[in-house]
Amino acid sequence: MDYELDRGVRVQAAGSGQYLAEVDGGWVVGGGVNGGYALAVLGNAISTELAPSGHRDPVSVSAYFLTPTRPGPARVDVRVLRRGGRRTTVAATMVQDEDAGPVERLTTLAVYADLDAMPTEVLREVPLPDLPALEDCLPPGAAPEEVRRTSPLLDRFATRLDPATAGFTTGSPSGAGVIQGWFSLTDGRPLDPLALLVVVDALPPATFDLGLPGWAPTLELTAHVRARPAPGPAVVRHETRNVSAGQFEEDCWVWDATGRLVAQSRQLALLPRSR
Amino acid sequence: MDYELDRGVRVQAAGSGQYLAEVDGGWVVGGGVNGGYALAVLGNAISTELAPSGHRDPVSVSAYFLTPTRPGPARVDVRVLRRGGRRTTVAATMVQDEDAGPVERLTTLAVYADLDAMPTEVLREVPLPDLPALEDCLPPGAAPEEVRRTSPLLDRFATRLDPATAGFTTGSPSGAGVIQGWFSLTDGRPLDPLALLVVVDALPPATFDLGLPGWAPTLELTAHVRARPAPGPAVVRHETRNVSAGQFEEDCWVWDATGRLVAQSRQLALLPRSR
Repeated sequence: MDYELDRGVRVQAAGSGQYLAEVDGGWVVGGGVNGGYALAVLGNAISTELAPSGHRDPVSVSAYFLTPTRPGPARVDVRVLRRGGRRTTVAATMVQDEDAGPVERLTTLAVYADLDAMPTEVLREVPLPDLPALEDCLPPGAAPEEVRRTSPLLDRFATRLDPATAGFTTGSPSGAGVIQGWFSLTDGRPLDPLALLVVVDALPPATFDLGLPGWAPTLELTAHVRARPAPGPAVVRHETRNVSAGQFEEDCWVWDATGRLVAQSRQLALLPRSR
Repeated sequence: MDYELDRGVRVQAAGSGQYLAEVDGGWVVGGGVNGGYALAVLGNAISTELAPSGHRDPVSVSAYFLTPTRPGPARVDVRVLRRGGRRTTVAATMVQDEDAGPVERLTTLAVYADLDAMPTEVLREVPLPDLPALEDCLPPGAAPEEVRRTSPLLDRFATRLDPATAGFTTGSPSGAGVIQGWFSLTDGRPLDPLALLVVVDALPPATFDLGLPGWAPTLELTAHVRARPAPGPAVVRHETRNVSAGQFEEDCWVWDATGRLVAQSRQLALLPRSR
């Protein structure tokens, strides 16, 4: 099947580690292209570059966001830093042309490997949080109309928020700094390691639950992928515990439908300007 | 005063963002140069490069470790990716010459700024953990003789471990995956933002407390610095909650002597090979 995410992250090799892409306006949220989607475009270029080695899966990706990504043509430059038998380390950057010349959008360092070749043993992991069944969580339709208008992205995410952490939708944030819920892609595309790069930046910022709504630009996001997710909806939890110096960290955990922790991430973001 | 860390991180500008350094063998632990010290050498080159802009302090640093750093000459290449009024984003790489030519040791992406110019408000933070007073914690002398012999680094760290998390020193790890304690530099050098890059990688791996001793090579480490630490010993906590796929994450929190959370970090490391 031809899924929206696969169309959106498509890249075309242009030689010497360069890949051409088309940033799809359907992944805009609040006026900007979703960071997780931009990361997935870049991540797909890395995966394509490393396909001959078999190291197609992200294990660790650290992204620094330099300027806002725009819908339209983009180029990803992938540079291999170290090739090993078990994993490859790369640097990759997404660039878009502006009138004055090419501008870097986001730049990353990453370790890629073959997740199927990694040890399967789970010695310990953060357990699934308590949350209501999917059908008792809130559909994305609960977002205010003015939010939905500027955020076509929301139609692509079949998010179901835990009502206990969705108070921000009715003006009553809990104050806990937690937002969690169930997550699928609306068109049913299975969640694979590439999609996890989208999933870790898919929920509203945890600051919404602190009564601090508004755009929270990401300075840095590091995602660690531990395993290929099993089919079915994932559970995603965002939490912020440190809000200081005009910044907050947002920790994210993703469990697959079997309850296995398949990814975690942390981002450092700026508090909304309204403060 | 001429402190060991300042001598160890000294860099000399060679033009065009290049800095020459001398990696000091006194920071070796278990046969390899301590990753936090190597990161501080690189971080000092960034700080020196950005001094004219006033953005001398690390805010976020993501390091990917490529090959083991060796005592001896090194070069750090610093490249500015984005200059802003409030912060500067850079890429920086440490290189050492081998017989076959220059080899990259660690490479980083980083945001630097002036911590004194950042908002001082603390809206929430992870509170200091419970731990005994410094004088009731274990001096580094408690490490086994064979560990101390290969680890001159330990003499530079005035670590005092919480006995509840130091069971690994007597063959009785607690199983909680936590190691915490008090930390100062032995020669009394104050802990500043640069030193925090050392502090976040100074304690033994949290896996020691799970009964998994041995060298745990870091793939990736991201540190966030929130504030300039107040004078006095810091409290440092390492914890791992996800040990799977042959890897573990190690979260680290650093509180200054006033109890303020001044830094946190997460690293993804490989489980010791003995497994």
